[in-house]
Amino acid sequence: MLFYKFRKSKLKQLNWGVNVIYLDQAASSFPKPVEVIHAMTEVMTEYAANPGRGGHALSMRAGSIIDRTRQAMATFFGFDHPDRVCFTSNATAALNQAIKGLPFEKDDHVLTTSYEHNSVRRPLEYLKKTKGIHVDYVNTGETEVFDLEAFAKKITPHTKLIVVSHGSNLTGKIMPIELIGELAREQDIPFLVDAAQTAGILPIHMTNMNIDLLAFPGHKGLLGPQGTGVLVVGKGIDLTPIHHGGTGSSSELIDQPDSLPERLESGTLNTPGIAGLLAGLTVVKAMGIDSIRAHEKRLTELLIRGLENIQFVTTYGPITDRLGVVPFSIEGIDSHEIAIILDQHYKIAVRAGLHCTPLGHETIGTSSQGTVRVSVGPYNTEEEIRKVIKAIEEIVDGYFG
Amino acid sequence: MLFYKFRKSKLKQLNWGVNVIYLDQAASSFPKPVEVIHAMTEVMTEYAANPGRGGHALSMRAGSIIDRTRQAMATFFGFDHPDRVCFTSNATAALNQAIKGLPFEKDDHVLTTSYEHNSVRRPLEYLKKTKGIHVDYVNTGETEVFDLEAFAKKITPHTKLIVVSHGSNLTGKIMPIELIGELAREQDIPFLVDAAQTAGILPIHMTNMNIDLLAFPGHKGLLGPQGTGVLVVGKGIDLTPIHHGGTGSSSELIDQPDSLPERLESGTLNTPGIAGLLAGLTVVKAMGIDSIRAHEKRLTELLIRGLENIQFVTTYGPITDRLGVVPFSIEGIDSHEIAIILDQHYKIAVRAGLHCTPLGHETIGTSSQGTVRVSVGPYNTEEEIRKVIKAIEEIVDGYFG
Repeated sequence: MLFYKFRKSKLKQLNWGVNVIYLDQAASSFPKPVEVIHAMTEVMTEYAANPGRGGHALSMRAGSIIDRTRQAMATFFGFDHPDRVCFTSNATAALNQAIKGLPFEKDDHVLTTSYEHNSVRRPLEYLKKTKGIHVDYVNTGETEVFDLEAFAKKITPHTKLIVVSHGSNLTGKIMPIELIGELAREQDIPFLVDAAQTAGILPIHMTNMNIDLLAFPGHKGLLGPQGTGVLVVGKGIDLTPIHHGGTGSSSELIDQPDSLPERLESGTLNTPGIAGLLAGLTVVKAMGIDSIRAHEKRLTELLIRGLENIQFVTTYGPITDRLGVVPFSIEGIDSHEIAIILDQHYKIAVRAGLHCTPLGHETIGTSSQGTVRVSVGPYNTEEEIRKVIKAIEEIVDGYFG
Repeated sequence: MLFYKFRKSKLKQLNWGVNVIYLDQAASSFPKPVEVIHAMTEVMTEYAANPGRGGHALSMRAGSIIDRTRQAMATFFGFDHPDRVCFTSNATAALNQAIKGLPFEKDDHVLTTSYEHNSVRRPLEYLKKTKGIHVDYVNTGETEVFDLEAFAKKITPHTKLIVVSHGSNLTGKIMPIELIGELAREQDIPFLVDAAQTAGILPIHMTNMNIDLLAFPGHKGLLGPQGTGVLVVGKGIDLTPIHHGGTGSSSELIDQPDSLPERLESGTLNTPGIAGLLAGLTVVKAMGIDSIRAHEKRLTELLIRGLENIQFVTTYGPITDRLGVVPFSIEGIDSHEIAIILDQHYKIAVRAGLHCTPLGHETIGTSSQGTVRVSVGPYNTEEEIRKVIKAIEEIVDGYFG
């Protein structure tokens, strides 16, 4: 926890006057490291020109930080081709580009899980309607068990994509992407991983894990700013662009150029955001994802133990191996009501509702009232977790005492 | 020019150590106002949470600045429905959403001009190939004249869209969107305006000008950060979303919700970018677009007069009524070579090449060598323009003297 104190003192310099206990890290990480803010300010004050679109000094400098970010991302995620690291505005845009960019035909089949976020489910449902594909959302259960054999049995000769969320944003359940990657490789099926909840928290190695397409946001586990997302496109995967437009190269062509990353990056990139993302990644690497993971695990266990001791409270999800995402409910009380009390009375920021994953709620049986989701990050502390537990004790006492 | 000095002194506080003469404003405006940088820093330090996706205080604050930006944009562009102001990552994404979101069918017709940027042309060419639409790129000539009658004659009973760049990014030619809007309304054809070069510089009133769809970037004339763009969707226009995903509302639906802006805004928005954009717009309003326009006009006229006095130099585009965008060539010299000399020897940032508008170059006859483009903004000065003219005199002297 040393790093936490170190950062907090640095953040004070920036007048980070927050007295909120922020436990909505699965939606966006907060606070952001000072390094991220400094990197963005440097771009904005010194060279916020259009990257790669002119040969002048400012444009070159903008292009250079973007190239360095591609390189750093490729290395961090075990991938040899930085030119295939494509920037998007968020993970949703990356997932849409991956899913809709593939050459699906009528009666093609997609295999996925019941934990997918709407950013995977809605594009698939759209393709069901417009292209006549079929989708299997395999129910993988509430616990940490993942029945690979049952999953594999759903593969058909028409299966053209396996897409799996690495970690559930609802229960923190972790999917065994290494094993699923092996399966995909054996059957020669492209494998897309939605790493929205895991990039910067769990180790991901695209090459070793046989991942063909990796999508993730910049503003969650990588501690970067909102407005950034990444799609890494494996060798041999050819995607139809979602956006067509100016690419700063091959301007004379009426078609989009063939080469990556330009093919998938029309229009001006978010240079300050990308510079911030590189700084976020650098902070994550300096902390080490192993210690981030260990820290989040410790807080999660403390939280679950505390909540389970409170009468009328139910927590959901795996017991041991899970992300720092803990949904709970209080018997008969609407989840939004609990979140509002936590916010207004205790200044504790959590999230209530369906968390954009209605199928996930069906899986754990919480569709009607939703859940309150507490999610932790590297800057949260044990003291904060104890305060949350105490607050929930008091709330339960207020209702039932 | 008072405002220029005022800002420059303020920028010094931020250690804006640039000694570059930046004349690539048509690609991205620079420097950015301090207000923009402060607004972004405030978000990043105080409330970089996920807007509108949780009821807690930080999320509400993020949602609030985004709503205020929608409201300010709607008012600024003469439009009554802030909920139909949709944020995108850049103008290209906004144009793609507009063009590909419309319900085109085989043999539908689109009317446009030969000055369109690749961000309009490439989406149209894509629809030609995939949906079998037809497109007329009307050559509107090099001067300020726009033959509305000839343009109108190209309308057919199958014309389902008129799309026009308000101002050319190549020659600064301004299209009479008010008259074209009248034409579109008379014929009941949706009218899309690409305001990439004009938002924040020329007055645009969606209601009075009969504009159905307005697309623009945040990082050019509006002085905001890169990573921001806007699509304003007129009442009665229904677009199929390009991105499907989490919208923070109606999570239980497998389809994208019907209501704007959520329908077109899947995934986490760029809160720091949007806050910066609001600050940029506020600065523009404080300066007044009339004085910005007058300032840019003065610089443009000075520049053209100076360049035309130099032997072997040709400038292109309208004579009087044009944007602050001036392309020129030096007889027999490659445009990139000139730009490199200006950059490395004079620290003057301009742009060479085709500027993502090959048809525009055909229109003015510069396809083979491209042009060097000088583009001015509110923070450029007469002294800078005089330095550019002197530099080009010296370059010509070096080649021909």
